[in-house]
Amino acid sequence: MIDYIYELKMKVRDYECDLQGIVNNANYQHYTEHCRHEFLLEHGVSFADLHQEGIDAVVARINIEFKVPLRSRDEFICRLRLEKQGIKYVFFQDIYRLPDEKLVVRCQVDTVCTLNGTLMRTCPQLDETFAAYLNKTN
Amino acid sequence: MIDYIYELKMKVRDYECDLQGIVNNANYQHYTEHCRHEFLLEHGVSFADLHQEGIDAVVARINIEFKVPLRSRDEFICRLRLEKQGIKYVFFQDIYRLPDEKLVVRCQVDTVCTLNGTLMRTCPQLDETFAAYLNKTN
Amino acid sequence: MIDYIYELKMKVRDYECDLQGIVNNANYQHYTEHCRHEFLLEHGVSFADLHQEGIDAVVARINIEFKVPLRSRDEFICRLRLEKQGIKYVFFQDIYRLPDEKLVVRCQVDTVCTLNGTLMRTCPQLDETFAAYLNKTN
Amino acid sequence: MIDYIYELKMKVRDYECDLQGIVNNANYQHYTEHCRHEFLLEHGVSFADLHQEGIDAVVARINIEFKVPLRSRDEFICRLRLEKQGIKYVFFQDIYRLPDEKLVVRCQVDTVCTLNGTLMRTCPQLDETFAAYLNKTN
Repeated sequence: MIDYIYELKMKVRDYECDLQGIVNNANYQHYTEHCRHEFLLEHGVSFADLHQEGIDAVVARINIEFKVPLRSRDEFICRLRLEKQGIKYVFFQDIYRLPDEKLVVRCQVDTVCTLNGTLMRTCPQLDETFAAYLNKTN
Repeated sequence: MIDYIYELKMKVRDYECDLQGIVNNANYQHYTEHCRHEFLLEHGVSFADLHQEGIDAVVARINIEFKVPLRSRDEFICRLRLEKQGIKYVFFQDIYRLPDEKLVVRCQVDTVCTLNGTLMRTCPQLDETFAAYLNKTN
Repeated sequence: MIDYIYELKMKVRDYECDLQGIVNNANYQHYTEHCRHEFLLEHGVSFADLHQEGIDAVVARINIEFKVPLRSRDEFICRLRLEKQGIKYVFFQDIYRLPDEKLVVRCQVDTVCTLNGTLMRTCPQLDETFAAYLNKTN
Repeated sequence: MIDYIYELKMKVRDYECDLQGIVNNANYQHYTEHCRHEFLLEHGVSFADLHQEGIDAVVARINIEFKVPLRSRDEFICRLRLEKQGIKYVFFQDIYRLPDEKLVVRCQVDTVCTLNGTLMRTCPQLDETFAAYLNKTN
């Protein structure tokens, strides 16, 4: 059983579906990004504010497995788990369809932080905020 | 006959189509925005650079008439005409399907300029750059 | 005081903001579309199902006035009112920022229905479903 | 030296940039999708037509490494290579910034075909069309 630390419920919007009648693949990246940012916000970290301070959390790698497509009207839940691996903050993010809890997308997002464009070995703001989660997994 | 001063050829991308199999309406706004910015760039005005200087060209009003929908694989041409009306720079932007030149969308975009968030009565950069066109229409 | 008949609360997603740091204009079209479709669904009318039956509700004209831009983290509420004007179903849709209720966008969306691509004088599904609202306004 | 079989030149559109001033990650997925579909079209295979025949080419897995971000005004080139691996059509897609040919994104897209929703062991349309490329790599 995966030990998620955050979840966000969402609903498909029709404009996210493409001519195959299913959610266009790129939108799952949008969903997972929104879920990460909401998770950060819930812990007092704003992606937009960090950017104003010169700190950008940037995605270095993303791997998405597409299992079952979402369709018009589907509700779904994005769940998230966080690990620190070296300089990377690795988000494991899975999307489940509601109400049947079918796995829609399994996703791993490797992020790093940059300060004025230069790679940071570690981001104090994130380390402090997520100490509880990061200790648990390292 | 409308006196367009700029045109840009584009092609529908499949992800822009929605479950009706036609380009989603919001994408026409994207097309016309891209066309305006390319028009500005061609005249040495960068939307992104203006933003860095504190000047934002913002859309105050947009009116779009949807005539014929674009579909997967369609090529089309965005044509543009510019007028100054008071403090507004008004872009008349029409999209035509290729090769049959059917009118797809007729669009009027009223823009104003702000300097650090405050409305400018006029934007010297734009006035100078587009003097030829603006004189012609006033 | 405007007599709205439906409202939907939403929140800005960071990917909807552009390099000006504000929600890109085209996304307001997305917000209003999603609000219309949720309104229809709440009354048992599915945009996707209608499409399967050959009926497409299509936007003929849209007029949007942009008042105050939404930013990262803003919550907002989309409110909607419906009128029948000839063959058109006209949606008046306004977006208000929360919690200060500032008017963000004032929008009028003229829609018509087509059956297998041909304009319908009226759409029985919509007329029946929205009889209460349509009578009130005509 | 990688043996690309197709390339498509594109240009960043400002609305694709987010509040960090760089192209939002999800748009790279859009770019690579558009490049695949254009590649297919150039070989007489239409994604939209296949869908009409009940055949859907669906993405099973995508892996994207983000190297250098694209910004407003950047031009770039999407290059593509194709392999058959079991039932999968694997697209290796890389994006290079112009004119300096910096690697922007390295991407692997595993696709499979479904017929009326059921997984096909192989898709005759694709096998025939791409015989030259698929033989070369197996």
